[in-house]
Amino acid sequence: MQFSDSDKKLSNKDIKLIRSLSQKKFRAESGLFVVEGEKLVAEALDSDFEVVSVYRKSEIGDDAMKKISSLSTPSPILAVVRKREYSLEDIISGPVPHSHSTNEIIVALDGVSDPGNLGTIIRLCDWFGVKAVIASHSSVELYNPKTVQATMGSIFRVPVIYCDLSETLGEFGKDGYALYGTLLDGSPIGLENVSAIQSQCGSSIIVMGSESFGISHEIRDLIPASNRLLIPPYNPDSHSESLNVATATAIILSFFRLK
Amino acid sequence: MQFSDSDKKLSNKDIKLIRSLSQKKFRAESGLFVVEGEKLVAEALDSDFEVVSVYRKSEIGDDAMKKISSLSTPSPILAVVRKREYSLEDIISGPVPHSHSTNEIIVALDGVSDPGNLGTIIRLCDWFGVKAVIASHSSVELYNPKTVQATMGSIFRVPVIYCDLSETLGEFGKDGYALYGTLLDGSPIGLENVSAIQSQCGSSIIVMGSESFGISHEIRDLIPASNRLLIPPYNPDSHSESLNVATATAIILSFFRLK
Repeated sequence: MQFSDSDKKLSNKDIKLIRSLSQKKFRAESGLFVVEGEKLVAEALDSDFEVVSVYRKSEIGDDAMKKISSLSTPSPILAVVRKREYSLEDIISGPVPHSHSTNEIIVALDGVSDPGNLGTIIRLCDWFGVKAVIASHSSVELYNPKTVQATMGSIFRVPVIYCDLSETLGEFGKDGYALYGTLLDGSPIGLENVSAIQSQCGSSIIVMGSESFGISHEIRDLIPASNRLLIPPYNPDSHSESLNVATATAIILSFFRLK
Repeated sequence: MQFSDSDKKLSNKDIKLIRSLSQKKFRAESGLFVVEGEKLVAEALDSDFEVVSVYRKSEIGDDAMKKISSLSTPSPILAVVRKREYSLEDIISGPVPHSHSTNEIIVALDGVSDPGNLGTIIRLCDWFGVKAVIASHSSVELYNPKTVQATMGSIFRVPVIYCDLSETLGEFGKDGYALYGTLLDGSPIGLENVSAIQSQCGSSIIVMGSESFGISHEIRDLIPASNRLLIPPYNPDSHSESLNVATATAIILSFFRLK
């Protein structure tokens, strides 16, 4: 993919190329994705990601920005950024996000399908010092514009890899990671198991299931019975069906990080 | 607002009326709102809300459903429902959601502006047995279609009232409610204050601020210094800006409900 030399000019070919990046197929072919908004573009420039080009409304004009933006209200700035591929080795040997970390956490996603949920989960992982996100191939694509925007910039700080989840969890298991997951037949989380989890000083992987089906049978079988967790509904009489997967991730991570 | 006699016929006038309900102005004039999807319509019918009319795609046809739906993919069923107004007295004297409740909780929203966030918070309140939501007039309207859909049916179970928040919080204070709020200069929540909060066996109101400005100065002054809470970022080095207000509500409620 070739862009015009100057950031300030936007050819029809550029417009076509940028617009094509709203489709997964063209993101896959080009290895590029789009970031919009002052904060996200600033974070992209401040990160190890390669920013291929930056377009400002003040330079290219309102109409051109409307043409390349995927937002209903285009922001003043848009950047085309090159995807970054991480390997499992990068993650295992990579730095822990926060120097005072004691318990290393990895979040595994088994088929999360909503782009907004994935983005929100990545933002949460950043907040709670999660080392990486590993996602099954059945999970929604990371560079979907809705996912990118929902991360609020955390996409540039939290490594995400797609993999054969059951195989990869097996490898982490050999490396001494304890495997946890939220399951309907799990033990209700509370003050008691918080202490148990935290006294276990090693590294953990927490599996979150898909919005519709939860954790698949294959992955469930890998999680020791004592590590199957349930966020108990406070009100068992209620028809309240379930928590959103991003909300459940927030609660589980806050429990793992409680001091 | 008058609808045709039969649910199975949909006149052009009906279409116009239903479409108008996507606008706040017409919802205010008519006192009606729209609910879409099997689950939400079933919960409306199962609730104390008055369901004015129900339209099924199998009866009115695809084209008519597309005309009245506000969803990009119309669901097979849509209902027009009458708003329900609660008073402060309804809430104070109303039943606690769950018979085994010990600590009654009310969630107060000080200017939450995103419809999806409001809906998600109402869904959470249902899950955690919150008695009611009280919202400042500056908060987004409850019957916005995005809010209604995001509640996943909890809108029919959790009473929501709009009020002068500082005046209302004062009244609850006189009734013995303890006032809490999440503030940047608050005490980090953790195992210690969980016990303190839970040993205080009375009723609580938890104030959550707006997405952009947090809790207003006026409301902040009402919250005792010891009740100002902070969800600590695990990783202070991170640029991770803040948690989404719905996510923060989930974490705070899970702490108040921890057993």
